[in-house]
Amino acid sequence: MASYARISLTTDYGLADGFVAACHGVIARIAPAVRVIDLTHLVPPADVRRGAAVLAQTVPYLPTGVHVAVVDPGVGTTRRGVGLAAPGGLLVGPDNGLLLDAAEALGGITAAVELTAAGWLAPEVSRTFHGRDVFAPVAARLARGARLAEAGPAVDPATLVRLPAPVVRPDADGFTAEVLTVDHFGNVQLAAGPPCWRPCRARSG
Amino acid sequence: MASYARISLTTDYGLADGFVAACHGVIARIAPAVRVIDLTHLVPPADVRRGAAVLAQTVPYLPTGVHVAVVDPGVGTTRRGVGLAAPGGLLVGPDNGLLLDAAEALGGITAAVELTAAGWLAPEVSRTFHGRDVFAPVAARLARGARLAEAGPAVDPATLVRLPAPVVRPDADGFTAEVLTVDHFGNVQLAAGPPCWRPCRARSG
Amino acid sequence: MASYARISLTTDYGLADGFVAACHGVIARIAPAVRVIDLTHLVPPADVRRGAAVLAQTVPYLPTGVHVAVVDPGVGTTRRGVGLAAPGGLLVGPDNGLLLDAAEALGGITAAVELTAAGWLAPEVSRTFHGRDVFAPVAARLARGARLAEAGPAVDPATLVRLPAPVVRPDADGFTAEVLTVDHFGNVQLAAGPPCWRPCRARSG
Repeated sequence: MASYARISLTTDYGLADGFVAACHGVIARIAPAVRVIDLTHLVPPADVRRGAAVLAQTVPYLPTGVHVAVVDPGVGTTRRGVGLAAPGGLLVGPDNGLLLDAAEALGGITAAVELTAAGWLAPEVSRTFHGRDVFAPVAARLARGARLAEAGPAVDPATLVRLPAPVVRPDADGFTAEVLTVDHFGNVQLAAGPPCWRPCRARSG
Repeated sequence: MASYARISLTTDYGLADGFVAACHGVIARIAPAVRVIDLTHLVPPADVRRGAAVLAQTVPYLPTGVHVAVVDPGVGTTRRGVGLAAPGGLLVGPDNGLLLDAAEALGGITAAVELTAAGWLAPEVSRTFHGRDVFAPVAARLARGARLAEAGPAVDPATLVRLPAPVVRPDADGFTAEVLTVDHFGNVQLAAGPPCWRPCRARSG
Repeated sequence: MASYARISLTTDYGLADGFVAACHGVIARIAPAVRVIDLTHLVPPADVRRGAAVLAQTVPYLPTGVHVAVVDPGVGTTRRGVGLAAPGGLLVGPDNGLLLDAAEALGGITAAVELTAAGWLAPEVSRTFHGRDVFAPVAARLARGARLAEAGPAVDPATLVRLPAPVVRPDADGFTAEVLTVDHFGNVQLAAGPPCWRPCRARSG
């Protein structure tokens, strides 16, 4: 199987606690040769849409590898943990819509599994820290070359949770579109692509 | 001697200056093959107790290695710089209590030295930046396989500075406990472990 | 040609978007063995002087390598992208004064080029993200051992844009000096070196 030299990590963990380092540590213990690219850890807490947007916009520039994303307000509930394969790489995280735009950016989902194989997870999985206990160890094993199909049972991609489509609504004199992100420089990104831009004008209010 | 592939770094340096990078650079110059895991650099300035807590809670998830921590309001005074050995790794930092909970988490102190061996430090040690001039170069040499005993004279672990025990006080109807940390998600961690939780109720006020 | 094991990265990109990770990704794709040291990404947006100061103060502690800096209010205009060689390393970034103090700290400019060689840049160069599309790929190629002279035509160092000299003005009873940086601990750094400190007193107001 393919092995990968890089794992990317996208979370809402912030940088003030040891959460990110614990994920790095778990990866380093399982896959010492792999390197981690911190995509960002400043996704606003529980803002799945924002996490999905920053992940999907950035993965095209990263090396082919395993991309872990954890913005996971449903941790500890029955929401599934999933691994997705795409032509451009693997994605690991909660089944809450976070990974799907990135999977599209990597060429579309070719396989999906639910992450339940006991040997892949931490010996004790906490109820609140699946980044450390589920997603990081799974990603490390995948980066080392383990097969996604062994991480758990196949999932029908049609059953994956999707985020509601963002609002993009034509108006008489333009369109109304949901703001996806406001970046560090104040650039506002709307949920409206180039086809909309040409005929329309953005409106405030 | 053992050599280590990873050094972790915990500081109150923040991320806006070049302080963290200077430590990375010093380590890379001395031990180019070693990789640094940034545990956190957002310990509130001079908050030794908070630094001790985040370090102790995170080191169990990191690879065996050298852990540098610098939350050091006493830099430039007569406080000692120390290196500690434990079954689970090595710790390097100021002798102000910062390292001791982590040493416990790694199995307890088996040896301690004061970091005074001239050949281990920067040629000129600044009065205010021992992370760069003392702790990073010592950690890099330890990671490369140098023996802790050569970093300076042995120190009796009983003489190491300890933080005052945090307040945990049973009440008539519960207990009062000092807050150790409030994490990024707002979770409050009290200085009271599971034995206390079962019979007691937390109280506010 | 020399190859380098490390690239440092200094930007005003902040840590909340995927901008920094995209640069890491571009570097990892072109030069997989090279490691990146994040100098800081919290230069205040467009504060070229602050970026120049933190870069110049930190590069002496980094391994010899390629230093990328991007604080670039002129991106998308006719300002040049440049690569500079110095005895202590290479510098890559916009021609707006950001790199010059660091070049001095590395021994002074020995060669300069304008970064225009098409094969060195991203296939499509965006108008607003030259960190990802120009400076990161150029740095990765330099770190891999490509020659700076092949990155574009030579530039006369005398034509490089310089920041206005910061204000340092002797007074009747001391001096007035511009503040270069205020660090995480509140230390104020003035644009006045040791020769000035001895005879003078700092003044507020």
